[in-house]
Amino acid sequence: MTKEFFTATPVKQVFDRIVEFVPVGTEKVPTAETCGRILATDVVAQTHLPGFARSTMDGYAVRAAATFGASESSPAYLEITDTVQMGMAAQAPVGNGQAAGIATGGMLPEGADAVVMLEHAAKLDETALEVYKSVAPGANVVAADEDVAAGQKMLAAGSRIRPQEMGLMAALGMETIRVFKKPVIGIISTGDELVEIGQTPVPGQIRDVNTYSLAGTVGQAGGIARTYGIVADRFDALRSTCTRALSETDMLLISGGSSVGTRDLTLEVIESLPDSQILFHGIPIRPGKPTILAKIGQKALWGLPGQIASAMVVFDRIVARFVGHISGNALSYRQHDRITAELTRNLSSVQGRTDYVRARIVEDQGRFYAEPIPGPSGLIRTLVEADGLIEIDMNTEGLEKGETVFVTLLR
Amino acid sequence: MTKEFFTATPVKQVFDRIVEFVPVGTEKVPTAETCGRILATDVVAQTHLPGFARSTMDGYAVRAAATFGASESSPAYLEITDTVQMGMAAQAPVGNGQAAGIATGGMLPEGADAVVMLEHAAKLDETALEVYKSVAPGANVVAADEDVAAGQKMLAAGSRIRPQEMGLMAALGMETIRVFKKPVIGIISTGDELVEIGQTPVPGQIRDVNTYSLAGTVGQAGGIARTYGIVADRFDALRSTCTRALSETDMLLISGGSSVGTRDLTLEVIESLPDSQILFHGIPIRPGKPTILAKIGQKALWGLPGQIASAMVVFDRIVARFVGHISGNALSYRQHDRITAELTRNLSSVQGRTDYVRARIVEDQGRFYAEPIPGPSGLIRTLVEADGLIEIDMNTEGLEKGETVFVTLLR
Repeated sequence: MTKEFFTATPVKQVFDRIVEFVPVGTEKVPTAETCGRILATDVVAQTHLPGFARSTMDGYAVRAAATFGASESSPAYLEITDTVQMGMAAQAPVGNGQAAGIATGGMLPEGADAVVMLEHAAKLDETALEVYKSVAPGANVVAADEDVAAGQKMLAAGSRIRPQEMGLMAALGMETIRVFKKPVIGIISTGDELVEIGQTPVPGQIRDVNTYSLAGTVGQAGGIARTYGIVADRFDALRSTCTRALSETDMLLISGGSSVGTRDLTLEVIESLPDSQILFHGIPIRPGKPTILAKIGQKALWGLPGQIASAMVVFDRIVARFVGHISGNALSYRQHDRITAELTRNLSSVQGRTDYVRARIVEDQGRFYAEPIPGPSGLIRTLVEADGLIEIDMNTEGLEKGETVFVTLLR
Repeated sequence: MTKEFFTATPVKQVFDRIVEFVPVGTEKVPTAETCGRILATDVVAQTHLPGFARSTMDGYAVRAAATFGASESSPAYLEITDTVQMGMAAQAPVGNGQAAGIATGGMLPEGADAVVMLEHAAKLDETALEVYKSVAPGANVVAADEDVAAGQKMLAAGSRIRPQEMGLMAALGMETIRVFKKPVIGIISTGDELVEIGQTPVPGQIRDVNTYSLAGTVGQAGGIARTYGIVADRFDALRSTCTRALSETDMLLISGGSSVGTRDLTLEVIESLPDSQILFHGIPIRPGKPTILAKIGQKALWGLPGQIASAMVVFDRIVARFVGHISGNALSYRQHDRITAELTRNLSSVQGRTDYVRARIVEDQGRFYAEPIPGPSGLIRTLVEADGLIEIDMNTEGLEKGETVFVTLLR
C-alpha cells in the first residue's frame, strides 16, 4: 500500500471531454415502440395537420357574416342544407344564409368559415335554424395548417421521444422511425471480497451489490447493461475480461477498487490496453473522488469506486451524461429534472470540491423540505432512503439550514 | 344531435373510487430485471449487513485506546502483527499495542475497534509503526449491523424498485423477487374519421394519433398496452370489440367520441355490457370534461375524449393513478414529481373546475419559469411543445403572472 495523490479536476472539465466519444449507430423501429428512444433524424412535416378546416364543437357550419348582429331577442334565421358526415367532405357548399350540421372533428364545408355551437342555435324544423349569438370568422374552427404546417421542422434529431412525439409522428403517417440504438454498457465488478448474490458470504466477504444497482441505472439512462460478473483482483484476470468486454460493448464500467491497491491494479490494466489514454484519475467530488475515466480506442472506460453509494452517485451525476451522449441524446442533462426544496439543516463542504448529498424529500403544507441523510458511502441503506441528491457547488463552503436548494431526483 | 348535461363531479371523488379496483396478480422475476417493478411483499432483512465490522479506509486496525494521546510530536508506537486479506477474516487478533494492515472494505480483526488512516501513520520497518493521531473507538469502521440489522423491515410491499433497491435485495442474497405483474391495458380508438397511420387520409379523415400516444403513456405508467385499432362508430362493432378486449385486458380505454353522438354511442355500449356500472359521466376538469368511468365486473373502462390533448391530460392526471393502483403501486401519485416555477402570464379559470394548462419550462439564471401554451385541445403540437402541466385548483378563479405554481412534468 502506497500513499497516492490525486490530481483534482473540476467537474466541468470532465464534461468537456464528452464530445470525444462517438454516438452509436441508428436503427428503424415501429412507431409504437419508440417511447423513450432518441430520434436520429429531424422530423419535417410533409403535410398540413389536420389537413382540412375542422370543427372543434358540435354545431352548425356557417358563414360568420350571416350571424352578425344575432342575439336572443333578434336571432338570425338560416337554412339547413346538409349535415356533414364524419370522415367525409361535405356534399354541398354553404352559401350565404345557409348552415350545415357538423360534429366535433367534422370537416368544414366549402364556403363556411365558422361554427355556431349547438347551444347557441335552435332547429325550428328540418331546414330552418335560429341562431342566438353571432360568431366571428374562424370561431370554433381549427385551420387546415393550424396544428402543423407542411415544411415545418417539428422535431430535432437527438431529442427524446415521449408519447406526444409518437402521436405527432403517427399523425404525419410515419410507420417506422429511425432512432439511435441503445448503447451496450459493460459492467465488471472487482474485489476479492465479493461473492455472487446466490452464495452465502463467509466472514470478510460481501455479496456483489454493484452489478445489480449499476445494471438498473444503466437501463434508466437509456443503455443496455451487459454484466461480466465478479473478477478477482489479479492483473491477468482483469485484463482479459476488460479486453473481451471492450470488444462486446460501447462503454465499460469497472466498479470496485476502493482500496489503493485495487485502484492501482485497475490503472495498470488500463495502461496495458492498446490505444489507451487516461483522461482523468480523480475528480474533485464527494463521494466519488477516486473515479477514473480512460479512453480506449473510441470507447470510454470508467473506474468507479467500489463503495455502492459512491458508484451510484458518480454514475448518476457524471457517467449518465456520457451514456446519454453516445445514445445520441442532445439533451441528456435535463436541467429541470430537479426540484427546489428548503434545507432542514446546515451542510458543510470544502471549496474546490463538488458535494452530492443524499437527501429525503418531505412535503409539508405544499412546501418541499430536503433532509440530508448522513452515513458512509458504503451503506446501501442511505441510497434506499434517499429521494434525490443535493449538489453543493465547488465554490461554496457549505449550505445553511433554511436555504433553498436544488434536489436532483433519484428515480 | 341532442344537447347534453353533464353531472360534474370533483376530481377527488373520482380518486376515491380507486380502491374498488383490484390489483393484478404477482410473479417472480430475477433481481436483475426488477428495475421499475412494484414489490409484492415486504422485504425483511434475514442477516446483518455488511455482516462484519469493516474498515472504510486504507490503514491499520488497532485498539483505539492504544492511540490515545498520540500526536506528531509524540507518536504512539505499535507492533504490526498481520495484514488483513480482502475477503477473509484476519489470521490473528489485535492485542493492546498491536496493529494490522487493512484496506478499505477489509474485515476488522478480533480485538481491534478502530482504523488509523494510512496518512496518519508511518511504517518504521516490517513490524514497527508510528501513529501520529489518536482515533476514537469506532473511527473509520462500519459496524456489522450498521447498514442493515437482521429482522429490520427494509422495503414495503407496494413500493417501486429503483436501482438502489435492486442493490439492497442483491446484498440480502435475494436472487428472484416477487413483484406485481404489469397490468394489460386495452386501447380502442373510435371515430368514422380515423384511418390507420399507414393510409393517406382523404379530406375529412385524419390518422389515428391516440392509439400511439396512449400506448406510449400506458407503458410509462407501468402497464402493457394492447391495441385494438380503429373501430367504427357503430353499436355492434364497438360492443363486440369491447367484449373481446375486456376478456383479454385488466383495464380498457376507449378514446374518441368527441361529438355528442359518439359519446352517446359509447355510453349505450357500456350500458349494454353485462355487470356494468357507470361511476362517472363527466368530470369537472379542462380539458377532459366528457370523460366516462365505468366498472365492468371488476375492471375499469374509460371513455376518453377524442381530442388528443384532452385524452393525454386525462390519462396523465387521472387514469395513470388507477393504472398505478392495479399495478400494486402504493404510491402511484408521487407528490414531488413536479417542480415549482414562476408563471409568466395571467391564467383565468372558473371556480368548481380543475384546469390543467400545458406549459413550457424555461430556466433563466437558476430560476424556472412556466410559460402557458395556448391552443385547442385537438392540437398535438401543443403537447409536443409542453414540458408539463400547471394545475389550477377548482377553488380558484385563476392564477396571476409572477405567482409560484406547481408544474407536473410530462416525461
